[in-house]
Amino acid sequence: MRRLGKQEIEDIAVGAALLGTGGGGDPYIGKLMALQAIEEYGEITLLDVDEVPDDALVVPSAMMGAPTVMLEKAPSGEEATAAFKNLEFYLGKKIFATMPIEAGGVNSMVPLALAAKLGLPVVDVDGMGRAFPELQMVTFYLDGIAATPMVLADEKGNTSLLSTINNVWTERIARAATIEMGGSTMTAIYPMTGKNIKESGIRNILSLEEKIGKTIRLAKDNNVDPIKEVLNKADGFELFRGKVSDINRKTEAGFARGVATFEGINEYKGEKLEVRFQNEHLIAQTEKRLLCVTPDLIAVLDAETGLPITTEGIRYGARCVVIGMPCHPKWRTEKGIEAVGPKYFGYDVGYVPVEELLKKGGLV
Amino acid sequence: MRRLGKQEIEDIAVGAALLGTGGGGDPYIGKLMALQAIEEYGEITLLDVDEVPDDALVVPSAMMGAPTVMLEKAPSGEEATAAFKNLEFYLGKKIFATMPIEAGGVNSMVPLALAAKLGLPVVDVDGMGRAFPELQMVTFYLDGIAATPMVLADEKGNTSLLSTINNVWTERIARAATIEMGGSTMTAIYPMTGKNIKESGIRNILSLEEKIGKTIRLAKDNNVDPIKEVLNKADGFELFRGKVSDINRKTEAGFARGVATFEGINEYKGEKLEVRFQNEHLIAQTEKRLLCVTPDLIAVLDAETGLPITTEGIRYGARCVVIGMPCHPKWRTEKGIEAVGPKYFGYDVGYVPVEELLKKGGLV
Repeated sequence: MRRLGKQEIEDIAVGAALLGTGGGGDPYIGKLMALQAIEEYGEITLLDVDEVPDDALVVPSAMMGAPTVMLEKAPSGEEATAAFKNLEFYLGKKIFATMPIEAGGVNSMVPLALAAKLGLPVVDVDGMGRAFPELQMVTFYLDGIAATPMVLADEKGNTSLLSTINNVWTERIARAATIEMGGSTMTAIYPMTGKNIKESGIRNILSLEEKIGKTIRLAKDNNVDPIKEVLNKADGFELFRGKVSDINRKTEAGFARGVATFEGINEYKGEKLEVRFQNEHLIAQTEKRLLCVTPDLIAVLDAETGLPITTEGIRYGARCVVIGMPCHPKWRTEKGIEAVGPKYFGYDVGYVPVEELLKKGGLV
Repeated sequence: MRRLGKQEIEDIAVGAALLGTGGGGDPYIGKLMALQAIEEYGEITLLDVDEVPDDALVVPSAMMGAPTVMLEKAPSGEEATAAFKNLEFYLGKKIFATMPIEAGGVNSMVPLALAAKLGLPVVDVDGMGRAFPELQMVTFYLDGIAATPMVLADEKGNTSLLSTINNVWTERIARAATIEMGGSTMTAIYPMTGKNIKESGIRNILSLEEKIGKTIRLAKDNNVDPIKEVLNKADGFELFRGKVSDINRKTEAGFARGVATFEGINEYKGEKLEVRFQNEHLIAQTEKRLLCVTPDLIAVLDAETGLPITTEGIRYGARCVVIGMPCHPKWRTEKGIEAVGPKYFGYDVGYVPVEELLKKGGLV
C-alpha cells in the first residue's frame, strides 16, 4: 500500500499514454481530471494485488467511446459515480476498490479520479497492460470472466445496465448505446473478485507507468536520452525514426481509425513507415519490412522529449521515434492472438513477436 | 375479473390489429404466441382497472422494433420472461400484473402470452388506445410517469436495463440497443402502481378490442356489413373506398416507413388517397382533401370481410375501406398533440379532429 499524490499522477499519466499505444484518450484531459480530484478529495491509496481480499468486489472504471469525442465532451465526474452506484445497487454489495481496465491517457486516470472522489483504493493492476479499442479485449476475457453486469452512464444522467451472454455482445450493445448517448460514456464494468484479479490481471501496471513517466521527466535533468531510458524500462525496441509526412484519420462506428506515415531520417532515410490504428496503433510497416503488429505495443514518441504522442496529437512534420514493446505473455497465447491479433483487425498477416521480427530486420 | 380463452384471444387479436392502425406488428404471429401460451398454461385472468390495488406493481410487456423484423424473427417467449425477472430483481418487488402498452397485432398479444406463462393477471387497460411507433408516446408520459427502469431482452439472452432522465432519451437509447440486438427486443417498461394506471391509463381497451373482433367475426353469420358494424362499435367514420395502386415501404432507423396509395371506387372514383405511415398510419389525404391525421386513428379494412390490414400485409389491387376514428381525449390536449400530432412526425399540418374534418368534407 502506498499513497499517490500529484507528482505520481503526472508520471503515471505520461507512462500510461505511452503504454496506451496512441490511443486510450487524451493524456491532458485524463490528468486534469485526476489532479482536480486529488486537489479536492486528497491523495489516493494504491494497493498491491496481494493486498486485496479474495472475496472483495473490485470494479474497473473506464470511459467508452472515441477519443476524438472525449476531446469535445469532457466528463463531469458524476457519470462515473452514477455507474458505480447503480452497479452496487444491482449487485447488492459494496465495491471494495477500483482499478484501470487499460493503460491510456484517459482510462488510467478515470479510476484514479473516481477513487479520490469516493475514497476507494485503486489496485495496481489492469486487464490489458496496454490499451485496446474494444471492451472484450482484456485478459479477464481470456479467462472467461464476464464483462457484465456493467453500467454505462452519460453526462446527462442516463444509465444503461447490461447483462449479456458473452463479452462480444457486451461490446456490440454497449458501443451502440454509447454512440446514441453522445459518443462517449463512463462505465463500471467487469465486476470481479480479488481472486479474479490475482489470477487474470496484469500486475503492477500503474507502477510501471509511473516508472516510465518519471524516467521521461528526469531525462533532461540527468542529461540522458529519454528514448534510450524508456526502451530500457519498458523492454522495448526502436523501430523507426522519421518525420510525419501524412495523417489520415476519421471517426467511424465510434472509433478513430486511420494511418500515420513517417518519412525516415538518419539511418532510416529513404524508407517510409506506415502506422495503422483503430484508436490504438495496430501495425507498423515499411514498404518492405513488417516491424511490429498487435498485440505487441507500438508507441510514437517525440524524438526530442521522449513524450508519447497519441493518434489525435500527431502533427505533420513532427520528428518522432516509433518504438515497439513485447505485450504481456497472456496475449501471446493462441486465444490471446485470436482475440487481439492482426487478423481480428482485418490485417492479412500472422502474429510474429516484435523481437523475432527485428531479429530478421523485419523481413518476413 | 373474467377469464380469457381461445375465442376471446382470436377476437382481441382482430380488434387490436384494427386499433393498431396498420402497425403494432403482425396479428397472426401475435395471436399464435398467445394461443400457444393458453394451450400450454391455461386461460388468462383479465382484471378491471378498479380491481388492482393502488400500491400493486403493474408492468406492461411489449415488443420493440420494426414489424418487418418481427416477421423474420419470432420471439421465443424467454425474452419477455427474462425482461420481467430482471426488472423484478432490480426493483426488489414482485410484479402483480401485466398489461398491454398499446393496441396492435403483436403488442396486444405479448402481455397475454406472458401472463399465461407466468400465471399473472392482465389488466384491461393500455397507454395509447391505439398503436404508436415510439415508446414515449403513451398517456403515462403525458402524466409525467417515467418509462424507466425498463429492461430490453433479446432472443439470445442479452438484457439491457435503462434508467433515463426522460422518456425521449429512453426511446433513443432503447431504439439504438434494439437495432444492435437484432432489430427487435422484448421489453418490461413503464413500471407503474395501480394508482398510476387508474389515473393515466386508457380503460377497457382489451374489452373494446374483443367487441370489435367479435363483430367482424359474426358479421357474415348475421348477414350484416362488417364495416358498418365496426364503425358503430368504434365510433368511426368511413374515409375512403379504393383499390391499392401503390405501396412504398422501407425499413429505416428501426421503423417501417412509407406510403400506401388507393384509387377510389364507387363514390370516390377519380380520387386518389394517400396513407402515410411510420409503423402506424399517420395521415390520410387526397389531392384536395385532408381526411384524418394522427393522433386520430386511421385503419385500412378489407372491403369484403372488414378484417384490418397492416402496412406489412397490404397488397397491390386489394379493395379496401379506409376508416377514421377519434383518438382518446387525452391525446387531444395541447401536450398530447405536441407528443403525437402531425407536426411531431414532420407533417406541416395542424391537428383537426377527424369529425370536424369530415364535417367540412376534408376541405381545410
